[in-house]
Order: sequence, then structure tokens, then C-alpha cells
Amino acid sequence: MLKFKILKQSNKSNGSDHCRARLGTIATDHGVIDTPIFMPVGTLGSVKAVSVEELDNCKAQIILGNTYHLYLRPGCDVIEHMDGLHEFIRWNKPMLTDSGGFQFFSLAKLAKFSDEGVAFQSHIDGSRHMFSPEKAVEIQMILGSDIMMSLDWCIGYPADEKQTMEALNKTTLWAKRGFDFWQEKGAVNNLFGIVQGGMYKHLRTLSAEQLTQIDFPGFAIGGLSVGEPKEFMYEMACHTLPLLPANKPRYIMGVGTPEDLVELVGMGCDMFDCVMPSRNARNGQLFTSKGTINIPNAKFRFDKGPIDTDCNCYTCQNYSRSYLRHLYKSRELLAYRLNTIHNIYYYLDLMEKMRDAIKQDRFLEFKREFYSKRQK
Amino acid sequence: MLKFKILKQSNKSNGSDHCRARLGTIATDHGVIDTPIFMPVGTLGSVKAVSVEELDNCKAQIILGNTYHLYLRPGCDVIEHMDGLHEFIRWNKPMLTDSGGFQFFSLAKLAKFSDEGVAFQSHIDGSRHMFSPEKAVEIQMILGSDIMMSLDWCIGYPADEKQTMEALNKTTLWAKRGFDFWQEKGAVNNLFGIVQGGMYKHLRTLSAEQLTQIDFPGFAIGGLSVGEPKEFMYEMACHTLPLLPANKPRYIMGVGTPEDLVELVGMGCDMFDCVMPSRNARNGQLFTSKGTINIPNAKFRFDKGPIDTDCNCYTCQNYSRSYLRHLYKSRELLAYRLNTIHNIYYYLDLMEKMRDAIKQDRFLEFKREFYSKRQK
Repeated sequence: MLKFKILKQSNKSNGSDHCRARLGTIATDHGVIDTPIFMPVGTLGSVKAVSVEELDNCKAQIILGNTYHLYLRPGCDVIEHMDGLHEFIRWNKPMLTDSGGFQFFSLAKLAKFSDEGVAFQSHIDGSRHMFSPEKAVEIQMILGSDIMMSLDWCIGYPADEKQTMEALNKTTLWAKRGFDFWQEKGAVNNLFGIVQGGMYKHLRTLSAEQLTQIDFPGFAIGGLSVGEPKEFMYEMACHTLPLLPANKPRYIMGVGTPEDLVELVGMGCDMFDCVMPSRNARNGQLFTSKGTINIPNAKFRFDKGPIDTDCNCYTCQNYSRSYLRHLYKSRELLAYRLNTIHNIYYYLDLMEKMRDAIKQDRFLEFKREFYSKRQK
Repeated sequence: MLKFKILKQSNKSNGSDHCRARLGTIATDHGVIDTPIFMPVGTLGSVKAVSVEELDNCKAQIILGNTYHLYLRPGCDVIEHMDGLHEFIRWNKPMLTDSGGFQFFSLAKLAKFSDEGVAFQSHIDGSRHMFSPEKAVEIQMILGSDIMMSLDWCIGYPADEKQTMEALNKTTLWAKRGFDFWQEKGAVNNLFGIVQGGMYKHLRTLSAEQLTQIDFPGFAIGGLSVGEPKEFMYEMACHTLPLLPANKPRYIMGVGTPEDLVELVGMGCDMFDCVMPSRNARNGQLFTSKGTINIPNAKFRFDKGPIDTDCNCYTCQNYSRSYLRHLYKSRELLAYRLNTIHNIYYYLDLMEKMRDAIKQDRFLEFKREFYSKRQK
């Protein structure tokens, strides 16, 4: 069972800037992770383009798997036969799986939501399936993730209050049923609840109140990064994070840019996941301490330097921007790997730097430095 | 300068089966390679899907780069600025570059052959270019390969005697001019001549006679694997190999299957290159000691075993057929890498096993065992 320990809690203010960042650890059956943490996304049982050893070298402590995707491919029968997802993909550190809620919103065809759960058609072959809150937990137990997520109804932006309320109510109902099922089964995997409520503060409050009555070992904020303006995302996160129990991990799902991570850690968020570092890498966009660069840009044609002189990743230690540009322009498979290694390292190194700053009680200074480098 | 040493020469017969296999070493400025050797193909400055460290772990001793491709992308100005191909791609072992001859046959648009050289249009953007034999050497000097190849005219199958003769004559003319240019420049890189002559034994003889009058440090047989029936390829190789100087390396270009390598080593060939292990890997076809398998096959869905229980590659040591099938079916980038690692390892391990067999004077026994495993 999960154990969350807070090692340091910041409560500093500096002008208009507040810091509620906190440093902690989450102990799971597959090891201990340091928070705040970023979780690279391994949708289909592989963080696209990189190996588990490379993830290790990028300082990855926990990765995410997608229940919806893995349920469809390779299927639970395969993963069960292969003794769970950890064994199947050869990742022996902690793993979190989402519930499928986000994919019903973003990917599945004709998803129909009812008290019972979600009926949907596969985005691959149109085949019909049904996820109940119990089934979402059951599948994740087969996957064997260390942290499972409760089935939720994630709605897009914009959504009116009525729609948002309906999604919220179902999410709460499903959370209770999923939790009861999990308790009955006595599963060793942990289960987190997901707060919804769209872009309405009072509905976020309501959702948080309802969800936190259930004794989940951790809570997530879902339904952000669904197309809303950035200020709304920050406003909802800032409003909702303090409503979640201080003694349990807080996870904001599907967010975000390096700037988002810095802002949200400052608001007291402990866990993040996002496809951005890996997806952008495959599109040639690389993160650096001075901002993002587009590697296909002609100005890198003769550039002997690394992506980021401040970076200690394998790619920056070995390869020039010129070579990376060439690989990318030539669509060589190695391009996607080398770019992904860099971007994931950048994200995880950023998290480590934030943890160090919190430890030394200098998070606001860190934040100032972070932004000042980017303005150069 | 290249030094070729023959350590063991087999001259055994066994019924109808002869063995002219030989064991040797080729010393270059970037290190010594053991022959017979297979050279993985790194078309655009990367052996597709694998890193240089992975090539090392696959026992790669020398890789091949494609002059035509690298000349077009990233361009010689870039590679010159980056201090040569070795530095650019971070491969510090020997490298061989072809002359472009094969690509004029297979890829370039509207290639026009004259005494002067080859005028062609880029397959990428249709831009017009000209390779003279001197220019082919000059570009390869910029690439900085350890073994450069003379510009040749590679013709397809079928080709009539007149066409074949014309290509042969140009190849000889260009070989002389390329050689003279190379001598004038006093380049440290080595230059090999390429025998042509299509599927005509007497033209192969003629080409070999003309070429071997030029003091190249090594000779290749080109114009095979261009669509001809397998027996013709063996017939031409078997006929031509003994016509090449015994004290210099003999290289058959663009060949072939594991069976081809075994046959041609038995005929006394020292060097090979082929895209087959890497290309087939990307198509899900994997080589094993018992024959090839197609990893997407449904029978591997629940298969916990490795690709090949006899294989010590990274992929076989870590991953199941079930996972590899899943990755491949899901088009995960990791699939291409893991498959390529296995296939290249298989090829290079096969070469090592052949070298061991020659050393122990048991190549014909090795060959029998090789085939008997595949018949099971």
C-alpha cells in the first residue's frame, strides 16, 4: 500500500508570488518516488521511441500506462498471461495507469455515458465495449499498476454548467462504486479519485467535497488541458489543489509545459503526466533552459553544439544540433529517440531541480531564475 | 593505409562441396576488422533504428555509409564542417562508403552515363547533379571513410551483352581515373575497384582482368542482387571470386540472406553488406537459427519466449515474442529498434561463428549444421 511522506512544506510569499510547493516521497510496492514528480507517458506499454534503460538514464522514477489503449491492444488476456504490465514491458519501477476517462473524451467513437459506465467503440476497429467503474479497476488490477485511477467523465471546453454537473455527478457515483469494488477485492494496487467540475470553481469545490469523502490514498484533478485558455487551467488548479487533503498526493492530469510544471508545483501539486515532452520531440521541438528550439531550423545546419549546453542527457553529451537536424530532416528513426531522450531528461531534470529548490527553501528564487534564463 | 592479412586459408573438399573460405584481418586507421565480415548499412549516417552503442553491442566492426545519400543530405559542406562522417555520427570504428553507383541504378531519376561520369537528378527534389569518378573519390575523402569505392555503372537484370559491355567499359575507364585521382591526392583513405559484367561469365572475366591491372588495395563484385535468379548470383560470384587477387580483400556488394553469406564465405568472399537485416526487421521479419519468423503472426500473441533461444542479443535477453508482436502491431518505434538489434546481431554472430569454424578448419561441418537446424 502507498505511503506518502511530506519532507518539506513551503509557505513562503514574495510580493504577489506565493509558494505552497512541497517535497515528499511516495512509497509503492515497486519502490519509492520523489515528489513533485513528472511521469513520462507509455501509452501502449512503451514510452514512444525510448527503452526502459534510457528512461532510467533520464531519471524516470515512475511511468504511466493507458488503460484504454492496453485494454484494446494487446488486450488484458495477453497482459494477464504475461504476468502483468511490469513484466511484459520490463519496467520494474512504479507505474500508474489512467482509467480510460480521458480517451473516452479524446479518442473513442460514440462514447455513451450512463450510471452504469461508458459504452464506446474502439478507435481502431469500431468494436463495441463497456467500461463500468468496477471494470476499470479490474482491468487496472490485471495491468498491475501501482497507482490505478478511478473511472471519470472528462468533458471538453467549453461545456455549460448542466453538462459539467452531469459529468461531475457520474464521476462521483463511479468513484464510490470503483472504490467499493477495490475495497472488496482487497487489491494491493492503490486507487486515486479524480476531481472534475470543468471551468466552474463552485463545481470544482463540490466535486472535491464529494470525492474527498471517499478514503482514496490520493487525488487527481482531471478535466484540465482540454482546450481551455491557460489562465482558466491555472485558476482551476489553484482553486482546487487546497481543497484536497494535504496528507495525500495531489496529481494534475495531462499537464503540461515546463512553465506549467513550475507554476503548479508552486501551487502544491505533487504529480504530473503529459505526452508533451515525447510528442514534441517527435515533432522536432526540443526544450532547453533558454526556451524551446525547432531542430529542423536551417540555422542549426552547421551547429556543432548540443541542444542545450546546460544539459547532461545522453543526446546532449554525444550529438550536435547539426547531426540531430540531419536525422530529423531525413526522418531517421534515431532522430525520434535522441530527441525524446533529451526532452524527457529535460522534464525530469527540471523536476529534480525543483525538488532541490524546495528542499533548500528557495523555490521562489528558482522560479525567478527559471524565467529569467528564458527571457534572454 | 589498409593492411590485409590472411590467417587461415581453407581448401577442403567434401563430396561435391568445396571450401575456399578464408580467415583474415583488415587493419585500417580506425582499427582492425576480422574477415569474413558483414557491414551493417548506415545509409544516411545512421543504421536505421539503432545507436552506435547498440551496433557495438551487436559486435559491429565496420559500417557502411551511402555516398549518394549523404552527398544529397546533409551535403558535403555539412560533413566537412563537422570534421567528417565518423565525428558527425559518433562512430569511431572503420567505415566503408559506396560510390553512388548502386543508387544511380536503383533510385536516382534520369541517370545519364557518359565517359565523363553520371549526370542525375536527386530522388528527393529533382535537382541536377554530376558525379565524375574523381568527384566520387573526392566526396568520399570528405566523408573520411576508411574504404572508398570506385565509381561504377551497375546495370539491372536482364541486360543484353551490348549494354553489359558498355557498363563494363565505363566502369573500367572510371576506375582508372578514380585511381589516378586518388593517387595524386595521396589520400589516406583506401579505394576499392568494382568488377561488373552482369550475368555473363566472359564479361566478368574481362572486367576482373581489366580491374586487377589497377593496384587497388581491394576488389568488390558489383551488379549482383539486382533482380537475377539466385543461381545466377552464385554462379557469377563463384566464377569471379577466384579471378581476384588472393592477397587482397574481396567484397560482394549488396548480398544477402544468411544462406547467401554462408555460401559466399565458402567461396572465399571476405566482405558483405546488405540492408536485409535492418530492412526486414522494420517489416517484422526476424532471422533465427531455425529460419525466419514473422513477428506479427498471431501464434506469438501469448509467447513468453525470446525470438531465438540460441541468441544472446539484447532483445532476446530481455523481451518476449509476445511483447515484440504487440509493439510491432501497434507500430511503436521501439519495435523497429528491438527487431533491428536482433537481426543485426544475428548476422554478425553468424559471421563470427563462420570465422570460428574456419579457424578450427571445420567450415563444411559448420555449413551442414547451419542447414540442418533450418530444416527441422
